[in-house]
Amino acid sequence: MKKWEENVRRVIPYTPGEQPKGKKLIKLNTNENPYPPSPGVAEVLQRFSADNLRLYPDPEAGELVHALAEHYGLSDDQVFAGVGSDDVLALSFLTFFNAQEEILFPDITYSFYDVWASLYRIPYRTPALDDRFLIRPEDYLQKNGGIIFPNPNAPTGAVLPLADIRRILDANRDVVVIVDEAYIDFGGTSALPLIDEYDNLLVVQTFSKSRALAGLRIGYAFGNPTLIKYLQDVKYSFNSYTMNSITIQAGAAAVRDHAYYEETCRKIKETREWTKKELSRLGFSFPDSSANFIFASHREVPAQQLFTALRDAGILVRYFNRPRIDDHLRITIGTPEEMRAMIRFLEDYLSASR
Amino acid sequence: MKKWEENVRRVIPYTPGEQPKGKKLIKLNTNENPYPPSPGVAEVLQRFSADNLRLYPDPEAGELVHALAEHYGLSDDQVFAGVGSDDVLALSFLTFFNAQEEILFPDITYSFYDVWASLYRIPYRTPALDDRFLIRPEDYLQKNGGIIFPNPNAPTGAVLPLADIRRILDANRDVVVIVDEAYIDFGGTSALPLIDEYDNLLVVQTFSKSRALAGLRIGYAFGNPTLIKYLQDVKYSFNSYTMNSITIQAGAAAVRDHAYYEETCRKIKETREWTKKELSRLGFSFPDSSANFIFASHREVPAQQLFTALRDAGILVRYFNRPRIDDHLRITIGTPEEMRAMIRFLEDYLSASR
Repeated sequence: MKKWEENVRRVIPYTPGEQPKGKKLIKLNTNENPYPPSPGVAEVLQRFSADNLRLYPDPEAGELVHALAEHYGLSDDQVFAGVGSDDVLALSFLTFFNAQEEILFPDITYSFYDVWASLYRIPYRTPALDDRFLIRPEDYLQKNGGIIFPNPNAPTGAVLPLADIRRILDANRDVVVIVDEAYIDFGGTSALPLIDEYDNLLVVQTFSKSRALAGLRIGYAFGNPTLIKYLQDVKYSFNSYTMNSITIQAGAAAVRDHAYYEETCRKIKETREWTKKELSRLGFSFPDSSANFIFASHREVPAQQLFTALRDAGILVRYFNRPRIDDHLRITIGTPEEMRAMIRFLEDYLSASR
Repeated sequence: MKKWEENVRRVIPYTPGEQPKGKKLIKLNTNENPYPPSPGVAEVLQRFSADNLRLYPDPEAGELVHALAEHYGLSDDQVFAGVGSDDVLALSFLTFFNAQEEILFPDITYSFYDVWASLYRIPYRTPALDDRFLIRPEDYLQKNGGIIFPNPNAPTGAVLPLADIRRILDANRDVVVIVDEAYIDFGGTSALPLIDEYDNLLVVQTFSKSRALAGLRIGYAFGNPTLIKYLQDVKYSFNSYTMNSITIQAGAAAVRDHAYYEETCRKIKETREWTKKELSRLGFSFPDSSANFIFASHREVPAQQLFTALRDAGILVRYFNRPRIDDHLRITIGTPEEMRAMIRFLEDYLSASR
């Protein structure tokens, strides 16, 4: 090792779900939307004047922020936009979690929370989900430096009722509480209506799932204007121009076409409910999912074996080789055709291995 | 102040150059390119399939990285791409500057270096430029935890010859040395050919200036494969998907059209040399600029007064109210027409105030 390498930051690189190219596969491994984004996005690309790209983008992403505020019945100063919800969440850790006390998030949850906490040297504690993979609200009533959890949770898909979120908020008026609602459009009740009542509540959502725009990179946060202003100040202080001009316009178009994305969500939820019934019939169990995926375990066949068999059949799902969840598969909800093909394969495979 | 606000990160927000909307102004304040980007960018937008945006982008931005490697005669593993050079630079601070010793950068330089150092708690020291605003290479021969400087420097425009860079590199084999070449396509000699010889040298460039794509947000770095791998590992560990799918394709198209951007740079340099002569004639002095801006001071009239007068006339330039440079204007090189209008105004204004 060279001397200069001694001062290089050591990390455990993230392993994203496979993004195979050119192969005809059924891709149910990264929670992408099986339907295309709103036609308004294609229209923006068609009429976008490339010449304007010589200029810096609007650092506030004003057009997008305004479209979001209008859609959700808020004022612009209650909305913050970033380059994917990962960007918004990481920035929120940096901005709000500077207490001496540990922040709290579930032991089984989105895999980047502990990464960002370590990155910014934020102490943390991870209360365990219960045996059915549900968050226990009472775990979040102890002293802490901040709270974050996804709702629905990932990779479990289980939702926390709004009454429980309110209970957590009531006990935590002195720290920032972040509810990460990446999957809320597929089920559960958003905490958004609570931002007026709790000035320490930040609600984070994304365009990557329900709006079918994972490739565009847009995330956003709702909160009272003071909270949003803090987030903006930190962002502008160290990287002002992050979202490009095309994304701002295309994202705004996607928001304005809400009928389209509501219809898309409806179809995905319908397919999810069908898939749940079929998986139950085949001997799988899972927390009742409110997301666009199902976190399933089979009563006889180990998850890793099923993962490999599905993969060999050209069906990609996600398998996490980690304590407590290493006998589960996270299966994204695709089109009805894709889910029928998966169920058909599983049915054949399971009866053959009996 | 609420209790939760006590743990919010306090920052000094960055003040970007004004981006006025809708007004007919001559905008020479943010070092943007006065010419549009390569026509290939518009073509990508026209033929881009919006449906693909439902999928996550390639986290490695492979198409763009490959186009850059081909253009500069490198292999793909010597190239890293990020969301603007601010993203690449901030990530480089985080990855490489983890020593106990102070890192070094000039006292007058790009205004984000001290921000990122503070953000990541990196100790730093800022050797002063000499009286003519030039970097003194001997200041960088002392013990340190890493080195970064722009070449040409900002906001001075002055270039450091390659022999001096080599001298700095020879004395600093044990730390990472970053040469920030945002403006190198307008003058000076790139340190790129030295990356094979010095495995601790990172060269950072951007699409925002010479390639006229400030609105698209692309920056990139060259270095030996080990250095690049460290940067990738840190990036993937905490935010895998940052550059969107459209940007990857549009950026690649811009790189492939190198004849276009070389012609654009040639025109800007020609306009810059004309502007230098005119400014000298009017009583301005400035470090000899190798960038797409001139950092000028008038022998009689204070910079702040000129800034305001220009602004009132609809001509925006940049003024920094900071010690040592508060009698200078940073004037971006626009089109010949824009520069003629500016010179005409200054000529009238200066003769009237005599």
